[in-house]
Amino acid sequence: MSILTSKETDYAQWYNDLILKSGLAENSAVRGCMVIKPYGFALWENMRDELDKRFKETGHQNAYFPIFIPKSFLSKEAAHVEGFAKECAVVTHYRLKNDPDGKGVIVDPEAKLEEELIVRPTSETIIWNTYKNWIQSYRDLPILVNQWANVVRWEMRTRLFLRTAEFLWQEGHTAHATKEEAIEETEKMLDVYASFCEEYMALPVIKGVKTANERFAGAEETYCIEALMQDGKALQAGTSHFLGQNFAKAFDVKFADKDNKMEYVWATSWGVSTRLIGGLVMAHSDDQGLVLPPKIAPLHVVIVPIYSKDVAAREKIDQYAKNLVKELRSKGIRVKYDDDDTTRPGWKFAEYELKGVPVRVALGARDMEQNVAEVARRDTKEKMSLSLDNLAISIQELLDTIQQNMYNKALQYRSEHYTKVDSWEAFQEVLKTKGGFVAAHWDGTSETEEKIKELTKATIRCIPLNNPPEEGVCVFTGAPSKQRVLFAVAY
Amino acid sequence: MSILTSKETDYAQWYNDLILKSGLAENSAVRGCMVIKPYGFALWENMRDELDKRFKETGHQNAYFPIFIPKSFLSKEAAHVEGFAKECAVVTHYRLKNDPDGKGVIVDPEAKLEEELIVRPTSETIIWNTYKNWIQSYRDLPILVNQWANVVRWEMRTRLFLRTAEFLWQEGHTAHATKEEAIEETEKMLDVYASFCEEYMALPVIKGVKTANERFAGAEETYCIEALMQDGKALQAGTSHFLGQNFAKAFDVKFADKDNKMEYVWATSWGVSTRLIGGLVMAHSDDQGLVLPPKIAPLHVVIVPIYSKDVAAREKIDQYAKNLVKELRSKGIRVKYDDDDTTRPGWKFAEYELKGVPVRVALGARDMEQNVAEVARRDTKEKMSLSLDNLAISIQELLDTIQQNMYNKALQYRSEHYTKVDSWEAFQEVLKTKGGFVAAHWDGTSETEEKIKELTKATIRCIPLNNPPEEGVCVFTGAPSKQRVLFAVAY
Repeated sequence: MSILTSKETDYAQWYNDLILKSGLAENSAVRGCMVIKPYGFALWENMRDELDKRFKETGHQNAYFPIFIPKSFLSKEAAHVEGFAKECAVVTHYRLKNDPDGKGVIVDPEAKLEEELIVRPTSETIIWNTYKNWIQSYRDLPILVNQWANVVRWEMRTRLFLRTAEFLWQEGHTAHATKEEAIEETEKMLDVYASFCEEYMALPVIKGVKTANERFAGAEETYCIEALMQDGKALQAGTSHFLGQNFAKAFDVKFADKDNKMEYVWATSWGVSTRLIGGLVMAHSDDQGLVLPPKIAPLHVVIVPIYSKDVAAREKIDQYAKNLVKELRSKGIRVKYDDDDTTRPGWKFAEYELKGVPVRVALGARDMEQNVAEVARRDTKEKMSLSLDNLAISIQELLDTIQQNMYNKALQYRSEHYTKVDSWEAFQEVLKTKGGFVAAHWDGTSETEEKIKELTKATIRCIPLNNPPEEGVCVFTGAPSKQRVLFAVAY
Repeated sequence: MSILTSKETDYAQWYNDLILKSGLAENSAVRGCMVIKPYGFALWENMRDELDKRFKETGHQNAYFPIFIPKSFLSKEAAHVEGFAKECAVVTHYRLKNDPDGKGVIVDPEAKLEEELIVRPTSETIIWNTYKNWIQSYRDLPILVNQWANVVRWEMRTRLFLRTAEFLWQEGHTAHATKEEAIEETEKMLDVYASFCEEYMALPVIKGVKTANERFAGAEETYCIEALMQDGKALQAGTSHFLGQNFAKAFDVKFADKDNKMEYVWATSWGVSTRLIGGLVMAHSDDQGLVLPPKIAPLHVVIVPIYSKDVAAREKIDQYAKNLVKELRSKGIRVKYDDDDTTRPGWKFAEYELKGVPVRVALGARDMEQNVAEVARRDTKEKMSLSLDNLAISIQELLDTIQQNMYNKALQYRSEHYTKVDSWEAFQEVLKTKGGFVAAHWDGTSETEEKIKELTKATIRCIPLNNPPEEGVCVFTGAPSKQRVLFAVAY
């Protein structure tokens, strides 16, 4: 008996149940904004710390820019304002006052801002307005800056982690002297995201570029990584944008090159957000709860004592458990000994399964007499009888095995849900039955892309990098095509 | 010749020059909001990481709550809304649209929120509205949660770090079953702040409680730590509030105790902010630039080669420097070898002094022939000729010495600027001449406190904890008093 709706019955309900019951997040009193609970935030901290390390290793520094963007800044880059104007939280006043009718407080009409401020949906405009003062010559370049921040996009239909009005993210904003260097940076950060997802989140991703339709508002080229969820839908896990000179031109940011010639600066921006937590949950979890890759799990191992009435046996269990905890901690393994007497082992087993703790060790008197413990893997639900000798080492190896197995499993699922199709019938059929990525020829026009979306809900997730050239005809229009692109229904 | 206004000439100008020229922060295009530049943000990261470690060691977890607070929430606690209503950024709309006159974008009047949202000035209200759902019984308590976040208070007169419309901070919000436990938590977190400031920031602080006038809006008791700056003004470096049952009552948060009786929950909140960076700068720095305590300095050591034209000597310097870098890094020391050929050593010396790097090592051919290097301390500006043998160990010890010396120096300054006075004349005279903390008897009334502030700008910074009882008479009214309190002019 599961406390969750099963994936089979209703995937969306399963996801929502799981987020709430595992204690990752919940909806708040503010429409579309979530509360990230301690267990969910611990996931985000692990992701953030690892990403931050990788950003710093690639030469980036953190900084912090204002949360507010003057309305006029947003308008300076035409495509940018077009993309964000419809979902902006707007600050118009800076003071409340007592309601003269005595009913609480009202907005003080005399405290109206001369120019409205937008709560940042992304920070290109405020940052490029700042960079203008930081950049005079080629010696000031490159600027390699990242910001960890909250942003707000007034989404009408929200879902915990996947689409919320406020979310947490990081946004890198870099400035370069040449187009080549900016493109190199864009691609480098895409690689950082991809290897983070694969090595750390056990999440295989496909690297590619977006079509013009799906490009970031203000970008020349949007690179992305696309992951596949267990319901066959794709999820964009991160984006890295080559912004050309668009923002430099909008904010008049020029530099003197080595020949003292004034040139516009080249830009990139790149980001991942708390949305990744939604992807992590949907890619790996099951009907019993979360399944977390060890590298990201707030808790790696839980030890549960199976007490008998024999006091001596209890003491032996406690003694062994405490030593094991010490040994595991010395290996950097996050472990909890749950000797709470007020709940039964069965209840604890279910609870830690729900929380996705990768390894559970049950210590019972009878097992210990045989010099073994029962060790359960969360990913496969396999139970093993492992020797008490060198148990810490066995567990350490098991954690590595679980990390690798989760990646392999997700990769296999993706391989099974990656289908080449060459006809419109097959295209529709695959989307209807198995879902996943559909590799198909496309005539390269936005019209066809939109028509296909209308008819099937599938969008072009990306044109994969290093895509092999292949002659073919568009599945929809029959017009000639030089390569396949990846379609999928997406979150 | 300094690039900074001297402290003597104009302390406020010195501070502003220093923040700008050392690259810590700058003003942004948004009134009152600052840009925290990479060097300043690196300071904040070091402070945040250390504080976060100490919070977790005392049993706290991080979480994240919405940036927006419905206007009606703010009104639920009477003193709270009174304290914050006058400085709120208010979101009234959620969409922009194209100006029909074709001039950029305007706020879409059709996208008006039913209820205005306040950008959080502090999060008690949204958090207690959330805790209501988390707490049913005593088993759900305590809740020990902290949040790292940005907050907005619409200040009219702002100064970089010290008072900005947006700032970064952490706010702990805890819930307890008993009054005693909540008070214990309030005091525990004050101790965490105090030991962090003293051990890590080299900043001696006085622990105390605020008078009713200076209490946090909604608190029963506000504990604080007060530091002294080099101009004799005090700076509140952190606060920890015992909130009683005020927010539990405002949001109707009750729990069933062990006897199944429903009781209101007891609360605390506590915070420190980027303001601390301002305090750090003002407590230690000098006319040449920042002076940073090693524990918080983004860079501990800079090595500057003094090249001659002799190529062999250059190579010897390079070789030695690279080994030293390796050895220092293996000790966890943050070091940079600045072998940039395009700037002269003298320029580098000034630059790293401005940046407050605690130790500078100059490697010259002649010195090296004598098996020594010139090592300069930033705090005392002392230069030493140290043996190249075991130089890494000497530097490590020197960093400890600098940390301790900076604390001692600040403590000595404070001792010299802590004056007991017993007459109104002496009170005024001390404030006018030497400033600092003035320990004086006070009659305990808000009227006297306000009158003294009017006349001298000095406020009661705190009633020190463990204050010895002492009979006396109020310096201003002559009314009887049982203890001295600490007055100072404050930031």
